[in-house]
Amino acid sequence: MALSTVFTEMFGIRHPVALAPMGGSAGGALVAAVSAAGGLGILGGGHGDLEWLDRELSILTRHTDRAWGVGFLTWAVDAAVIEWTLERGPAAVMLSFGDPVPFAERVRAAGVKLILQVADLEEARQAMDVGADVIVAQGTEAGGHGALRGRSTLTFVPAAADLVAPLPVLAAGGIADGRGLAAALALGAAGALVGTRFQATCEALIDPATARAIVEGRGDDTDRSRVLDIARGSRWPSTYTARTLGHPYLDRWRGREAELAADTSAVQAYQAEVARGELPSLPLWAGEAVDLIDSVEPAADLVQSMAVEAETVLARAGRM
Amino acid sequence: MALSTVFTEMFGIRHPVALAPMGGSAGGALVAAVSAAGGLGILGGGHGDLEWLDRELSILTRHTDRAWGVGFLTWAVDAAVIEWTLERGPAAVMLSFGDPVPFAERVRAAGVKLILQVADLEEARQAMDVGADVIVAQGTEAGGHGALRGRSTLTFVPAAADLVAPLPVLAAGGIADGRGLAAALALGAAGALVGTRFQATCEALIDPATARAIVEGRGDDTDRSRVLDIARGSRWPSTYTARTLGHPYLDRWRGREAELAADTSAVQAYQAEVARGELPSLPLWAGEAVDLIDSVEPAADLVQSMAVEAETVLARAGRM
Repeated sequence: MALSTVFTEMFGIRHPVALAPMGGSAGGALVAAVSAAGGLGILGGGHGDLEWLDRELSILTRHTDRAWGVGFLTWAVDAAVIEWTLERGPAAVMLSFGDPVPFAERVRAAGVKLILQVADLEEARQAMDVGADVIVAQGTEAGGHGALRGRSTLTFVPAAADLVAPLPVLAAGGIADGRGLAAALALGAAGALVGTRFQATCEALIDPATARAIVEGRGDDTDRSRVLDIARGSRWPSTYTARTLGHPYLDRWRGREAELAADTSAVQAYQAEVARGELPSLPLWAGEAVDLIDSVEPAADLVQSMAVEAETVLARAGRM
Repeated sequence: MALSTVFTEMFGIRHPVALAPMGGSAGGALVAAVSAAGGLGILGGGHGDLEWLDRELSILTRHTDRAWGVGFLTWAVDAAVIEWTLERGPAAVMLSFGDPVPFAERVRAAGVKLILQVADLEEARQAMDVGADVIVAQGTEAGGHGALRGRSTLTFVPAAADLVAPLPVLAAGGIADGRGLAAALALGAAGALVGTRFQATCEALIDPATARAIVEGRGDDTDRSRVLDIARGSRWPSTYTARTLGHPYLDRWRGREAELAADTSAVQAYQAEVARGELPSLPLWAGEAVDLIDSVEPAADLVQSMAVEAETVLARAGRM
């Protein structure tokens, strides 16, 4: 048996699981592992650093001949990077956070599938209008960045699926095991886009301490905030927060974001503490589903076990 | 076929659907309709007004001989009301929002099932320790009151189910159709506790304008806040927010709760506008799943259609 959906058929893949293009950490090895195991790996292209992309795409294409994609931050990437990427033969380009209009036409003209991530029904409608092939409905459960005032995956996925039908929707945010994948399919999604769970893999390009923090972390301790983006001087627009595990600066500045932004000495102190190694170099981006993550595993095993567990859960629930 | 679970077996009911005890609006007629249709109706006992309870229990017991429960706000109810309720023959007493220790022993000694609602894993552990028979894991998607810093249903339910197994968990928050019920079961819940969807029924004790607002409302427009509780001088503790549809006072005071609480003239102005009928008499409590609600229906039809849709969804997804 296999969980065949519009999404798996579109890409000729075996399992309705996509790797979230986590900037910098979803590198070539992780993407190749997910795609080789029957999911859709999507490279974390982030802002569009060509040197990083070139290196990771070389690793990726050496390790799999299956379909793969590349994801970018829409507000940060430029057209030349998209052009360069299209020449490397992706099955999909995924754009998240920002206006996709400047890039959508070019991606589609290249015969490459366009995956657009959205955070509310208005964005879902716009994504449909610009010709998305797949729409990712991201809930606030997600680790890392998301909309300041977003939706929960559980209610957003069926509402988005109703709105954009027959376009396939992937559920993103809060999915870390086969139960979450099964729930996504029950809600009407054609698959799940999974981030945090794939950080705790052998292939993710992250500090082992970060993987350990995800394995040990609890969903109750994750929180969405702009505090750490402000403190580290990030270019992320103020319309996005990020979900992270606990951090001393979060406790100190939660609810006082404007004050922190204006406090040059506090920002300098943060950056100095990072430079001295007294604070982690990056926020510990993690989704609410960290409760369900208790080991670092090869990504291929995860794709397999999520699919098998989802099949089992659905078969059992359907027989009740 | 029927969706039989530990929860349906515990109460001898047909469908794994419970009515959330929405204070004041989940009255005798609604509870009776849900129980008669094969779910578990739970009366919205709120603070424990004996006159209201007496009237609604009379209606309830005239209309069904199936199992039913009564729910209370733990921080507001007193032991005498619990005692009085136990004498009326409920199958369950449900306690939400506060410390259940003063009441738990008495409910269990009466041979009545104890249902405890929780908002995080620490509360789930406490509920297990005081002897809950059923644990309701409430996510922030829920309409009306909930924890200030709560969890999303999608990630909270499987984490709570893992923690309290083999105790049955009901998923609450964001469930308004058979897809949501199917997702809850896939996540490991033994059923769903449904609130907002049952507000838009013929039997709910609400203003028709409120039911209309729920039918017309969009999940994107709901928001959690303390603003309206402060403005109306509610006794709700400051550790709870409520999810409502839009309201002029929300736009005016969001993020300035402390300022509003100190501004006697603003609070008086709100109450005067309510008295003059210029503002709704109560906040429009509604969950994020209002997108999925597009008609006012008899509650029995809803119980039926949710169960049938959930069965269909699970059977289809499991066959994919």
